[in-house]
Amino acid sequence: MANQEDDFKKVISHAKEYGYVFQSSEIYDGLSAVYDYGQNGAALKNNIKEYWWKAMVQLHGNIVGIDSAILMHPTTWKASGHVDAFNDPLIDNKDSKKRYRADVLIEDHVAKIEAKIDKEVAKASKRFGDAFDKEQFLATNPRVVEYQEQACSILKRMGKSLENEDLADVKSLIEELGIGCPLSGSKNWTDVKQFNLMFGTKLGASSENAMDLYLRPETAQGIFVNFLNVQKTGRMKIPFGIAQIGKAFRNEIVARQFIFRQREFEQMEMQFFIRPGSQREWYEKWKEDRIKWHWSLGMGKDNYRFHDHDKLAHYADAAADIEFKFPFGFKELEGIHSRTDFDLGNHEKYSSKKLQYFDPELNESYVPYVVETSIGVDRMFLAVFSNSLQEEDLGNGTTRTVLKLPAVLAPTKAAVFPLVKKDGLPELAHGIVEDLKWDFNVLYDEKDAVGRRYRRQDAAGTPFCITVDHQTLEDGTVTVRHRDTMEQQRVPKENVKRIIAQEVDMKHWLRRMAD
Amino acid sequence: MANQEDDFKKVISHAKEYGYVFQSSEIYDGLSAVYDYGQNGAALKNNIKEYWWKAMVQLHGNIVGIDSAILMHPTTWKASGHVDAFNDPLIDNKDSKKRYRADVLIEDHVAKIEAKIDKEVAKASKRFGDAFDKEQFLATNPRVVEYQEQACSILKRMGKSLENEDLADVKSLIEELGIGCPLSGSKNWTDVKQFNLMFGTKLGASSENAMDLYLRPETAQGIFVNFLNVQKTGRMKIPFGIAQIGKAFRNEIVARQFIFRQREFEQMEMQFFIRPGSQREWYEKWKEDRIKWHWSLGMGKDNYRFHDHDKLAHYADAAADIEFKFPFGFKELEGIHSRTDFDLGNHEKYSSKKLQYFDPELNESYVPYVVETSIGVDRMFLAVFSNSLQEEDLGNGTTRTVLKLPAVLAPTKAAVFPLVKKDGLPELAHGIVEDLKWDFNVLYDEKDAVGRRYRRQDAAGTPFCITVDHQTLEDGTVTVRHRDTMEQQRVPKENVKRIIAQEVDMKHWLRRMAD
Repeated sequence: MANQEDDFKKVISHAKEYGYVFQSSEIYDGLSAVYDYGQNGAALKNNIKEYWWKAMVQLHGNIVGIDSAILMHPTTWKASGHVDAFNDPLIDNKDSKKRYRADVLIEDHVAKIEAKIDKEVAKASKRFGDAFDKEQFLATNPRVVEYQEQACSILKRMGKSLENEDLADVKSLIEELGIGCPLSGSKNWTDVKQFNLMFGTKLGASSENAMDLYLRPETAQGIFVNFLNVQKTGRMKIPFGIAQIGKAFRNEIVARQFIFRQREFEQMEMQFFIRPGSQREWYEKWKEDRIKWHWSLGMGKDNYRFHDHDKLAHYADAAADIEFKFPFGFKELEGIHSRTDFDLGNHEKYSSKKLQYFDPELNESYVPYVVETSIGVDRMFLAVFSNSLQEEDLGNGTTRTVLKLPAVLAPTKAAVFPLVKKDGLPELAHGIVEDLKWDFNVLYDEKDAVGRRYRRQDAAGTPFCITVDHQTLEDGTVTVRHRDTMEQQRVPKENVKRIIAQEVDMKHWLRRMAD
Repeated sequence: MANQEDDFKKVISHAKEYGYVFQSSEIYDGLSAVYDYGQNGAALKNNIKEYWWKAMVQLHGNIVGIDSAILMHPTTWKASGHVDAFNDPLIDNKDSKKRYRADVLIEDHVAKIEAKIDKEVAKASKRFGDAFDKEQFLATNPRVVEYQEQACSILKRMGKSLENEDLADVKSLIEELGIGCPLSGSKNWTDVKQFNLMFGTKLGASSENAMDLYLRPETAQGIFVNFLNVQKTGRMKIPFGIAQIGKAFRNEIVARQFIFRQREFEQMEMQFFIRPGSQREWYEKWKEDRIKWHWSLGMGKDNYRFHDHDKLAHYADAAADIEFKFPFGFKELEGIHSRTDFDLGNHEKYSSKKLQYFDPELNESYVPYVVETSIGVDRMFLAVFSNSLQEEDLGNGTTRTVLKLPAVLAPTKAAVFPLVKKDGLPELAHGIVEDLKWDFNVLYDEKDAVGRRYRRQDAAGTPFCITVDHQTLEDGTVTVRHRDTMEQQRVPKENVKRIIAQEVDMKHWLRRMAD
């Protein structure tokens, strides 16, 4: 665990040091749970978005992409259920004036009980050595059994109270458990209140005719309200999909884990419109297609797993997460949801507009069912970045830090170096940059010894370094050095473009989805 | 003028009919001055952004791109001057309860006076025929001279009052001129108040510890607050630039002209950091570079002009617009501004952080000066779209509607048709789509006669149509039909990819900037 935390800290500091992620408004001491992407981060993020867009839109004849606004008519969020149900239960401590999520306070309390169980297990394991049977111990040790029952009954009661909107009982539970403010220890609590997670704003002058708006908490609704416009003007036939990449906002009370959970974040969502009754088949199909997209990046199949939801959201009839092994463990990276006709049906009700599709084969009209794939750009960024960052033992007592980004996503594809700053080598190197820049993001660097420049590009994630030396003057060859293997090859400089293209061409990577 | 309005209406309805631009939340009767981009609009918008990004970031070794958050620390907007100065003077009519921009009410009144002058000119011109000397008439006709003096003195007084923040005098002026509510005629006005154009929101739970935030009204400040982070982690040397594409928000009271002035819009901005004293040279250089970028799209040099600002914003020491000939006349498309050290200097003051650059050549530290290029994505979209939409007389008594988008920006590069829906032609056509889709956005269409399919793609802006017929079965050739010339050529199907690539490859278009 301590190791996980250290690894994660390394990820965060490396992200800053190499221009990937900065704290937002850092010169003003930052804005909590909001981040800016630096020169390398913006490029990596753009490449992730392009990789998704190409796979989902360009390669599918029956999927189109749109770009709907962040500001939407407020009734949208009545229809979607967000105005009524997108809440966190909050409680204030009257003494410390600090505000907490009531459910998190209780869960943290339960975590302490579970820690006690772990401690008992560790003690017994030490005592009994090889003879220790953990299962049996958990089932029979009276103290451990009592802890388990405590934890279970607390979580059950909390779940029931939240489900029944019995917030008074949530407060009672906190008081009965003697939970104090984590900061001050005070047990002087206010009532528990529901707090909506949408950011509000006002459209128009702030007088009686101003309109209360929300910043969208998800991009999906921008697709649903445009369903008919796209279907009709694009002459789409079911099954078909509408994809979108865009910002969404959630006023999280407890936001943590770097860019994993931000107040401002970006989603890549695709809503696939289908015949009612075919949802199971499409749900399975999209689970398969999406995991293949992830696998195509070559970050290791073991780092992904499916988590099928037992408890379903109000709009879903099936749901699964693709979880990724982040530095802090397996967590949700993408969701595949069978949303039924919940959204379109509700928009019909609230707008009084028909949102139906006439199916020429069935000769009937219906509200389509929807299967959604939804992935966070920032989470995908964190998955790629954290998985790529490695400390490599070079065997000779030295190590190197290398960011083994999938080459297709790397911000800079190649760095071009003159071996020394004289004898016309800089001019030659600049010439290669001028030639490559039309096809790739490349950079020129002449500072420090070449070995140091290699390390700098390793840490920045650049897959190729091209070095121009005195032999180049004679025979026109250069050294191509590969980030992952550190291998160097001597090639005619005319071949460099082809060598890079073979490794970074998006087409080649996308074709791996079929593997 | 009536013609202009008709043209503009055609642009708007064509944009909707072909899936380019929809009103936001249309099923809820829309959200004023906010728009959604449909399946073709999103693609055109993405292509515009890529064209800009490649030209500004990829092709410049000394310009990098970032992606900063929409939500920023609120002190940012104190430092930038937006909290204090980003206002419109508003006035309410007490009877109709309608709210107006006081300056627009006065300007509309002046416009009426100017209309009277035009009327006098028209009358006199008719009376005197060829002998009519307009200059002389304007200078000597007593009635016209009086009108001109009226208009001039009103505008002068308004300008002075606004500059001095003398809002009481702005109200007096409205009353003295007898301006009534355009809707009700009522002259029962409230006082004039300044209204800030930034959208506000609150971060955190809505209690005493909530933080008042703004949705950024421009992307530039996200660059300034990250200046040092980017400069240091990217090891940038002056002169260098930081570019960004992103959403911005302005709570416009009077928003009109379709996507030209929206409440939610997108900017492409580049801030170029330079030595103090070199701003004039860089300002001229960027004016030249930016107009060449526009010209490279081949939309006609006559459609652009520079407008140098006489009156400068508080932060600028020189400023020019690149104006484009929109359907409603020449209007600002892009701005090039010499911003001095205004922004960085103010952020230094408000943050108490040094935002200086150590110049190794001069061996001294300074706050850099900045030259900015700033273009609205949505305006660029409107420029491209409206300029491309043409009704073409085909000479034989028929016309066609064709959207002559620069091929590099077209949403779909090619549509592939089987001549008929049998004899294996659909399979052949699908095969071509499967081959092309890895490189281009392409679509398949088998509905209606081929002539009608051509017209549909003309109107949607698709540069190529590829038709598979019975001859294809025999010799493997297909027909390539060109949107702009309507020419058809018979070519081996293996050549299709190359023919398309030659016309749409972004590299080729960008190289024209050097012409």
